[in-house]
Amino acid sequence: MLSGETLANPRSDRVKAVARLSGRPARLRAGRFLVEGPQSVREALRFRAADVVQLYVTEAAAQRYAEIVAAALAADVPVTPVTEAVLAAMAGDDATVNPQGLLAVCGLVDVPLDEVLAARPRLVAVLAQVRDPGNAGTVIRAADAAGADAVLLTDASVDVHNPKCVRSTAGSLFHLPVVTGVPLPDAVAALKAADLAVLAADGAGRTDLDDLLDEAETARTTGAPALLRGPVAWVFGNEAWGLPPADRALADQVVRVPVHGHAESLNLGTAATVCLYASARAHR
Amino acid sequence: MLSGETLANPRSDRVKAVARLSGRPARLRAGRFLVEGPQSVREALRFRAADVVQLYVTEAAAQRYAEIVAAALAADVPVTPVTEAVLAAMAGDDATVNPQGLLAVCGLVDVPLDEVLAARPRLVAVLAQVRDPGNAGTVIRAADAAGADAVLLTDASVDVHNPKCVRSTAGSLFHLPVVTGVPLPDAVAALKAADLAVLAADGAGRTDLDDLLDEAETARTTGAPALLRGPVAWVFGNEAWGLPPADRALADQVVRVPVHGHAESLNLGTAATVCLYASARAHR
Repeated sequence: MLSGETLANPRSDRVKAVARLSGRPARLRAGRFLVEGPQSVREALRFRAADVVQLYVTEAAAQRYAEIVAAALAADVPVTPVTEAVLAAMAGDDATVNPQGLLAVCGLVDVPLDEVLAARPRLVAVLAQVRDPGNAGTVIRAADAAGADAVLLTDASVDVHNPKCVRSTAGSLFHLPVVTGVPLPDAVAALKAADLAVLAADGAGRTDLDDLLDEAETARTTGAPALLRGPVAWVFGNEAWGLPPADRALADQVVRVPVHGHAESLNLGTAATVCLYASARAHR
Repeated sequence: MLSGETLANPRSDRVKAVARLSGRPARLRAGRFLVEGPQSVREALRFRAADVVQLYVTEAAAQRYAEIVAAALAADVPVTPVTEAVLAAMAGDDATVNPQGLLAVCGLVDVPLDEVLAARPRLVAVLAQVRDPGNAGTVIRAADAAGADAVLLTDASVDVHNPKCVRSTAGSLFHLPVVTGVPLPDAVAALKAADLAVLAADGAGRTDLDDLLDEAETARTTGAPALLRGPVAWVFGNEAWGLPPADRALADQVVRVPVHGHAESLNLGTAATVCLYASARAHR
């Protein structure tokens, strides 16, 4: 089923070139990134097959994930058998990512903001200065589950093609359009121009999320206007210091997630989940 | 302000004894655990000062976090100055935990289930077979924010006193009672006997969380009965494989969080956050 010879030399130039894609400079130069593990590879092939350049697979994984290999071949993606040692060398040394014998090289997924806005999105998540790849991936996965139409990472955020970020999206990276590299003020201006209400999520917010949800519930029966019933972009700040005042000031409203216990704050994933799922409910 | 000599030998028996508390056997033997970093130490002193046995602090941290040292002294907690090397040796080698010059030794925080149930809780989070300390900590923090009255970790779950778990609760570990070590069937039986509805969160659930929330919204105005308006215990499963059928069968209902996009599943923190915040809204 697989064509070509098995790659067996972990120190070959080809293996080194793949491994270098763990780093941002090589990704930008090549315009490609690593997609590791069955879940991510499966979703890449399902939703973005045209962007998948190459699949590397061990013998054991080719048997265990035969349907993934078949999907790659059906999409005319070259499939190259490799030894375990080669796959490990390609995957680099981040112990948080276990490729389980499957690794794809894929064209970068980010799309221009204009393209996203042209599709008239109703729910967008904006990550401003999110630095931890695991956190960014978690929010992308939550945004997907909440039915967001796009995710935007500002220029000061982690690279969405970072292997740990890719991994923690659990395939969601390929489910919805992702925009990167736009400065927050430009992004907010464009979102507003596209008729989205821009809501900054921050513990210092004057608007309580529960009040917005109440307004939306009432509007469902009365037909009154309600902010959360319309198109909304949520802006989430850095995991440690949140949104600086200058960033909050860009938003139409600053919204706080209610904290009922003694917790001083919410972590980024928790706050984003509550806000995005509130929007999902309001948009029903 | 600080009494006693500065501990300067990272290889002393005293330092080694503290460092060993990173491991579960030493914690169980000593009945004590490590609380690292300003946020966790501050919350321990604020909510559980009687359980704090000892505070170790570097000179730099004693200046930077003078109010924490003052709180310890006010609570009659012995405060011992240590060198940076000693603090690093005590904290062990988990790079995910940065004590920032402050480390407390604290008596174990878990309480008996009977004690929790006697307080007639209205919202309880149950972690069944959650194995990753970071995930467990994240759910405890989210449960605190959602106003949960207690968190219960079954016998097959990670040790809540694990340094990485403590760290990721961001102090919430000291804000609400935590029960550990109870087998899931026993926990469910006790929760039901205490008149809590036991809801298992699982993608395979027949009940949609949005329907339960709709029922609760209607009940707010009509006074009709609604499951989420009453006392509820949510059961969350393992981060990788969820809840096995036998565990789901223990619950009164199996509830699925709606997934609107293409995501196949939610991660544990996201699912728990949506469920617990749904309960918080329904309980208003």
